[in-house]
Amino acid sequence: MTRTIVESKTKTAIIGFDEPFCVIGERINPTGRRKLAAELEAENFSTVESDAIDQVKAGANILDINAGVVYNSNPDPNITEPPLMTKIINLVQNLVDIPLCIDSSVPGALEAGLEASNGRPLLNSVTGEEERLELVLPLVKKYNVPVVAISNDDTGISEDPDVRFLVARKIVERAADFGIPANDIVVDPLVMPIGAMATAGKQVFSLVRRLREELYVNTTCGASNISFGLPNRHGINNAFIPMAIGAGMTSAIMNPLALPVKQTEKDARKKEALEAGIKIPESIDDETFCRIFGLGFTRSRPGKEMEAIRAANFLTNNDPHGGKWIKFNKPVAKPGELELSGRPGRAGGRRRRRA
Amino acid sequence: MTRTIVESKTKTAIIGFDEPFCVIGERINPTGRRKLAAELEAENFSTVESDAIDQVKAGANILDINAGVVYNSNPDPNITEPPLMTKIINLVQNLVDIPLCIDSSVPGALEAGLEASNGRPLLNSVTGEEERLELVLPLVKKYNVPVVAISNDDTGISEDPDVRFLVARKIVERAADFGIPANDIVVDPLVMPIGAMATAGKQVFSLVRRLREELYVNTTCGASNISFGLPNRHGINNAFIPMAIGAGMTSAIMNPLALPVKQTEKDARKKEALEAGIKIPESIDDETFCRIFGLGFTRSRPGKEMEAIRAANFLTNNDPHGGKWIKFNKPVAKPGELELSGRPGRAGGRRRRRA
Repeated sequence: MTRTIVESKTKTAIIGFDEPFCVIGERINPTGRRKLAAELEAENFSTVESDAIDQVKAGANILDINAGVVYNSNPDPNITEPPLMTKIINLVQNLVDIPLCIDSSVPGALEAGLEASNGRPLLNSVTGEEERLELVLPLVKKYNVPVVAISNDDTGISEDPDVRFLVARKIVERAADFGIPANDIVVDPLVMPIGAMATAGKQVFSLVRRLREELYVNTTCGASNISFGLPNRHGINNAFIPMAIGAGMTSAIMNPLALPVKQTEKDARKKEALEAGIKIPESIDDETFCRIFGLGFTRSRPGKEMEAIRAANFLTNNDPHGGKWIKFNKPVAKPGELELSGRPGRAGGRRRRRA
Repeated sequence: MTRTIVESKTKTAIIGFDEPFCVIGERINPTGRRKLAAELEAENFSTVESDAIDQVKAGANILDINAGVVYNSNPDPNITEPPLMTKIINLVQNLVDIPLCIDSSVPGALEAGLEASNGRPLLNSVTGEEERLELVLPLVKKYNVPVVAISNDDTGISEDPDVRFLVARKIVERAADFGIPANDIVVDPLVMPIGAMATAGKQVFSLVRRLREELYVNTTCGASNISFGLPNRHGINNAFIPMAIGAGMTSAIMNPLALPVKQTEKDARKKEALEAGIKIPESIDDETFCRIFGLGFTRSRPGKEMEAIRAANFLTNNDPHGGKWIKFNKPVAKPGELELSGRPGRAGGRRRRRA
């Protein structure tokens, strides 16, 4: 049974065929987050800190770290991204102790991340593009780390799942030439938005099954892509993830947190309450308002997808007799009850170079 | 591709390999519902009426009808159940127009249901027990109807899925001896509670796949059995159903309705609100209170399982481009907006006897 070992200084995350589903928290990524990008350029790491802590609390097993900020002051990411990657990794490693996933399209940032990371991080990513294979696989070999392999190549992303399977196989074979075993390749078969491609779900399920049965590799995906552009995205994601797990998917890069309640939603509820003759004191804080009016939480909590994953783990016998399910469904721990360690100076695993 | 045709006078429900998942509404069943049982003995059919209408509104494709009341006045169901079955079926057929599933362990009630039903009802059920095979299969043949086949036999319910598969195969073969084709057999592979049997989920998924690939039959199950005795049953059911659909399950006997909000939950929320200084007018009605405080609905609405099923239909390309998903996620129709027809005197399909 294929197992991919990912390690921090003190903790191990296993992506594996007979393991609980591995959640790679995607939040520390400035792509499409303008506020975070501006903060990072200004050397303000407060969002990174809270995202790291919140995602671990919500149940992430690995944290993805992407430092892909396009600086206003210097638009060359080859220069700006590597030192930022180093800074973020050092910061996050001092705050939480789960393993990391180093995510960049800039080779220098990948190497900076590998240098900065304790343990055995997951590298994100190689593709079937020739240039990328030649740049990334030597790093995978040199640092003896597992790698995410995305199934597109120099011709782009094929809509034909058979082509995407062949790209994955090519990457696995090329890695083998470098002495990298298949169990260190985590294939992302690429999830298309189902609103645009009606067969997107079926494609992923059958691809995942083939990748597992024919290439013996672990799999991952950007899970929320499936629901892009559609109403009630959580509703689709919550069904997609268990179905993907049932098909054999072993990890996903995703947001483990519930989305915050929108201000418009809060305003609408308040209006409705007032119209029904309910009087709300001016002094009520946001957290209390949202809790009492059943709107969810303003502070970070696990999203419904995490519930779906816990249930799927139980249903695939990766939580035998449901001990973790029962614990997950107990009332939420108050702030401070969860131990978040990873203090510097601890003894722990060192990455071994490949022979 | 296997298709099982179930018909009312005017509507067809198809259980099929490449069809949207078929929801068989389970609510009209006095087993474990003491209030409903007492009502039925007193010839009060108001709950049956609302259950019929609510389940159709919530998206049920077929309604299960079980008249298994043990009368206080006459404890012999062979005498009391057949006429009650006839009454309920006549009542429901006058109220809603979707096909029915006639559910009884009393042969006389099955035959009474077959006589009373318009169109082509689903018969529930035959098992691998010799006596049951000899009693039920001739009815299936005579009335030319499809039948649910439960995979237990005279030795009981096996914990070994291979044995349950063989029981299902025996029923399919025995049916063939009667001239009943495999596409009129809907196998229930039996869902065990996962709290008691850690492999229960995996068993169902692999059994469903085998039943589909080796016996070419449609499948069904009592979906909520999986979560029996566990906390947050909806959370487990909501993952189980999409996973079962992904494995090839084509229908389920289940409650399509959201559970009503508990009084204790309402009281607790009210107390919390008052403590936070919120003033609630005495005159507020239950429906408004529950809506504004985000507790859900007092009137019947589709349960989260229906959302999971709609999403799974989309993800298996049985709702191409998501037209039904988008419609499902629009605001709920007000009472009266949904057409519930099935008036008597309409022209419509008649059951054809098997040649």
